[in-house]
Amino acid sequence: MKKNPSAKKVKVHFSPDNIDIVAEQGENLLQVAIAAGVHLTASCGGAGVCGTCKVLITEGTVESIRTEKITDEEYQRGLRQACQSRVLTNLTVHVPLESKLERVVLSREAEKTSAVLATDWRFKPPLTKFFVELPKPTILDNTGDLSRLLRGLKHRFNLSNMSVDFGVVQKLAKTLRDGRWKITVTTLITAARPRAKEEWRRPRVINVEAGDTREKHYSLAFDIGTTTVCGQLLDLSQGKVIAESIAYSQKPGGLKKLQQAVVATINGIIKELLAQSQVKVKSIGHFMLAGNTTMTQIILGLDPKYIRLAPYIPVANLFPPVQAKSLGIKVGQHVYLFAFPSVASYVGGDIVSGIVGAGVHQRETLTLFIDIGTNGELVVGNSDWMATAACSAGPAFEGGGIKHGIVATEGAIEDFKIRPATLEPELGTIGGKKPKGICGSGLINIVAEMLEAGVIDQNGKFNHNLATKRIRKGSDGYEYVLSRASGNQIGKDIVITEIDINNLMRAKGAIYAGCQTLSKSAGVTCNDFEQVIIAGAFGSKLNIERAITIGLLPDLPLDRFTFIGNGSLLGARLTSFSRDLLDDARRVANMMTNFELSENVDFMNNFMAALFLPHTNAAEFPSVNKRLARLHRGKSKQGVAI
Amino acid sequence: MKKNPSAKKVKVHFSPDNIDIVAEQGENLLQVAIAAGVHLTASCGGAGVCGTCKVLITEGTVESIRTEKITDEEYQRGLRQACQSRVLTNLTVHVPLESKLERVVLSREAEKTSAVLATDWRFKPPLTKFFVELPKPTILDNTGDLSRLLRGLKHRFNLSNMSVDFGVVQKLAKTLRDGRWKITVTTLITAARPRAKEEWRRPRVINVEAGDTREKHYSLAFDIGTTTVCGQLLDLSQGKVIAESIAYSQKPGGLKKLQQAVVATINGIIKELLAQSQVKVKSIGHFMLAGNTTMTQIILGLDPKYIRLAPYIPVANLFPPVQAKSLGIKVGQHVYLFAFPSVASYVGGDIVSGIVGAGVHQRETLTLFIDIGTNGELVVGNSDWMATAACSAGPAFEGGGIKHGIVATEGAIEDFKIRPATLEPELGTIGGKKPKGICGSGLINIVAEMLEAGVIDQNGKFNHNLATKRIRKGSDGYEYVLSRASGNQIGKDIVITEIDINNLMRAKGAIYAGCQTLSKSAGVTCNDFEQVIIAGAFGSKLNIERAITIGLLPDLPLDRFTFIGNGSLLGARLTSFSRDLLDDARRVANMMTNFELSENVDFMNNFMAALFLPHTNAAEFPSVNKRLARLHRGKSKQGVAI
Repeated sequence: MKKNPSAKKVKVHFSPDNIDIVAEQGENLLQVAIAAGVHLTASCGGAGVCGTCKVLITEGTVESIRTEKITDEEYQRGLRQACQSRVLTNLTVHVPLESKLERVVLSREAEKTSAVLATDWRFKPPLTKFFVELPKPTILDNTGDLSRLLRGLKHRFNLSNMSVDFGVVQKLAKTLRDGRWKITVTTLITAARPRAKEEWRRPRVINVEAGDTREKHYSLAFDIGTTTVCGQLLDLSQGKVIAESIAYSQKPGGLKKLQQAVVATINGIIKELLAQSQVKVKSIGHFMLAGNTTMTQIILGLDPKYIRLAPYIPVANLFPPVQAKSLGIKVGQHVYLFAFPSVASYVGGDIVSGIVGAGVHQRETLTLFIDIGTNGELVVGNSDWMATAACSAGPAFEGGGIKHGIVATEGAIEDFKIRPATLEPELGTIGGKKPKGICGSGLINIVAEMLEAGVIDQNGKFNHNLATKRIRKGSDGYEYVLSRASGNQIGKDIVITEIDINNLMRAKGAIYAGCQTLSKSAGVTCNDFEQVIIAGAFGSKLNIERAITIGLLPDLPLDRFTFIGNGSLLGARLTSFSRDLLDDARRVANMMTNFELSENVDFMNNFMAALFLPHTNAAEFPSVNKRLARLHRGKSKQGVAI
Repeated sequence: MKKNPSAKKVKVHFSPDNIDIVAEQGENLLQVAIAAGVHLTASCGGAGVCGTCKVLITEGTVESIRTEKITDEEYQRGLRQACQSRVLTNLTVHVPLESKLERVVLSREAEKTSAVLATDWRFKPPLTKFFVELPKPTILDNTGDLSRLLRGLKHRFNLSNMSVDFGVVQKLAKTLRDGRWKITVTTLITAARPRAKEEWRRPRVINVEAGDTREKHYSLAFDIGTTTVCGQLLDLSQGKVIAESIAYSQKPGGLKKLQQAVVATINGIIKELLAQSQVKVKSIGHFMLAGNTTMTQIILGLDPKYIRLAPYIPVANLFPPVQAKSLGIKVGQHVYLFAFPSVASYVGGDIVSGIVGAGVHQRETLTLFIDIGTNGELVVGNSDWMATAACSAGPAFEGGGIKHGIVATEGAIEDFKIRPATLEPELGTIGGKKPKGICGSGLINIVAEMLEAGVIDQNGKFNHNLATKRIRKGSDGYEYVLSRASGNQIGKDIVITEIDINNLMRAKGAIYAGCQTLSKSAGVTCNDFEQVIIAGAFGSKLNIERAITIGLLPDLPLDRFTFIGNGSLLGARLTSFSRDLLDDARRVANMMTNFELSENVDFMNNFMAALFLPHTNAAEFPSVNKRLARLHRGKSKQGVAI
């Protein structure tokens, strides 16, 4: 972040972490917190719409925009959204537990949910190191340094037709003499064509190092999402992940600032990966990036404005490799950033990466691939054909737009049961901690359970005639009290409201409608899939049965569903390990046909029909409707009104 | 040049040009003059050895290193070598006529002496512009901007398998919309392989411009020599030279300063070319550079130190194309500099360029190619094979190391006759002006004429028994007065000394010995050549017969000799016009076998034998010896002692 040297400096103290930082007067408080290493949730990335970065100003003054996410009572107490506040004086800031982001949990989670479905690939990274010892020059053999090197590589490894980066030529003379004619050469395969024969690949010499450095051979794999950035450090000599980290991305205004912010996030992760692994930055040789189209363009400094405007045009779907350092990423001069090709403005490299990581393109099995986040991206197809679409689901699955929604950290309510007799809740939270809020998978479980228990009807409305004090009228209309203030971490009742339920229904409805539209265009239905692969923020915490119950996922046997967690990061990792899969990435992007849903009448009709639990068309969810009928018949016998 | 902001400023006035400039205290006076646009000869490029940048300090003080090039009398008068002087106070500096460089003459000369011998090439530049109008995107056709462009190029021009520069991707969205989907695309062929089929070439998209700019399609061709830099601006839409300029290169110490100095010279020439032609810099799309190995490495920022040390190793002979802007050259971001491949440390891209320009590689004719400058570079061979060597000739042919040597500008003595009866000279000067000094071709003519007239003997010693006052003993030993002070521009006698003659003999001896050594290694002799092509500074001013007389060129019929002037610049121009010839450049560099003469015993013997006029071995120059014998018999009859 560029500092203004003439700006007045102020001190900001964060409790309970007890961290002090000097900031500039006028600086954004969320950015100050990030700079201080105080990690706020900020699930919307600083846009002001999620209300998850609330902090308590206990001393000093901020200038703050008040949004509807802050109640009168909270405002009086001194709570402010950090992302909406600018620092005016020295401050003491208290970070409430529910706003605090536990990065460790996130990090563990990402690791746990990774699964490799892609098969039939050799471990043969696009980045390779060759060690060679060259004969010293003499007056009878005084060819140039570069010719000597290329001759040695040809003789020793039968490498030919290589291109050589200019940076290599510049350091070659010194490196050869420093290493006494023993040298390690790093090559990169970048320009593989679809179905290229091995001899057509043209290796590019990107680096030379004195002596034998073959064991110091690393690369980076990153998934750049709209809200989170995940990075892994890969050991290419052993084919394994040796460090991993996640951070939330910030969203300041303006392309240049956006670019700098996401690069700063990437640099922060790289720093952490290097610290975790004790690897030196110069030993990193490659950067594989999978991101959605907008984030990929932002990182590459390409204005994404035509993505947002009809007819939704990305600058490019296939990006040439670019020197990572030229983008501000703190790695060696020789490191190329390879961005996964994208398919359309709303189906990006992250989806292509996920498909490659999941091996969808390798099997004849009719597959539905579904990545659930702010957008739900869908792919249907197999090794012969693929169709894809994106449907705007909103942030509900990531805890956004939900009154007590939080991301999936410790204390998030995940499991939920209603005791039939009393309608009292039984809660399970991540890490077994006292409740702090509701995460996306928890939300699905709660709504499914309330539907089955008859607490809400199929329109998502509370049955307020039930004999329980849990259902009550709150400031946002009817709500169900999940956890009383006395028994939770945040000191006030945690509730789920009709508005929350409606938001979830719109989100699941968009995804199911997209799935229907895409299936129909390919001549199949949602009930025809032989395999359903689920990628995205949920990880394995998504309860498939519950998700089917609310109508998010198709009504299929449970054994057809597979989780792959962060498919985007998975694909970035596997393509770092295998040039075969890297070739596949380009081929997959080429073979996908994109369907634009935004002006599609069929999709709009499907969406309206999906705003019901599970669906207005009972035939779409036969098993769910059967179970609901059975349960509610049972409840009727027990005298519960539905 | 980086200025030191805290250095004291002084004013320097140059007469008779009447130019004022503010300089820093301590700055080198030659560099101040160059910055002021006052062009001094400085044929050695500022090394202090030629004595051709003498100036008269009429007011103020300089700190100056005194070399042997300044006589006591000159020093007393206030003459100093500009390259050896640092500015201490405000100055008034008078530039004597003989130190002044007339750039216009040089420039005209270069143009006049260019000749095209290469045949069998199509006009098809490696740089091409394509104009295409694309369909506007719609919701049904919302592929990315880049895909749309590539699709259009494929459809309209059947172009495929292109690579796209990242800079193009960055500006594409705006350019397409600015031009309302009409766009001009510039492509460059860089990676053609020897004998590549057309479909194997991979065009690189390096630039896009809004609208139709096909007529604004230019490139630069440069020859970078040790002492001079020549540049041409080429119109690629018409295949012609539209501007041309020459400048002397400076030689400050240190790689970085050297690099900056030569780039500054290049930038000065580009500025002048643009001014001459009224072309805008953004319309320049390519930069073809031919230079010797050292200068090529310097421009590319590659330390040439291992070139100078045995076993004489260049960093590379083949250089990847590099963005000219990254080297400090003031052209657009999209312009690649393509440096001609070199063969060895002392046989550079300038020679490869000359061979391609002369078409030596296209004919079966046994050819001697000879580029005479500070080094004499020789190539013998034809379309099947080529051998090459460099021999250090010293600067005599460029007027260096010669008491009154000057470069070939107006007033330089070029033609010379001795009246047999009186031994008085008849002079011819460039431009018919009063004499100012002796240029390289003049020196050869003078020595040959003096030899034929019996004024000197075959050892190069004056016959001081002759009845003429023209031969006298001067401060450097015996000398012949070519022009009296009263009749010339410099106000003192212009003479040629025995030391001058000896320097010339060493220079011509080195070249002839190199030619002998190289011929022998290839199994031929100097008298076997079917064609001799002469490139280099001489241009067509070299009198072939005279050059044979002194033993510089082989004793062959005159119709076998051809001048091509600046062959290096010629090759740079032709390869800008023809991708076929560009391919040839790489092939020619590959096919040349270099012979290292510096430690070659055969060469040393040949050199010693060549220190005679024309040669100690009379059989090498039968026609010359026959003529000399006839002339001197005649002279004996007239009573002239020999």
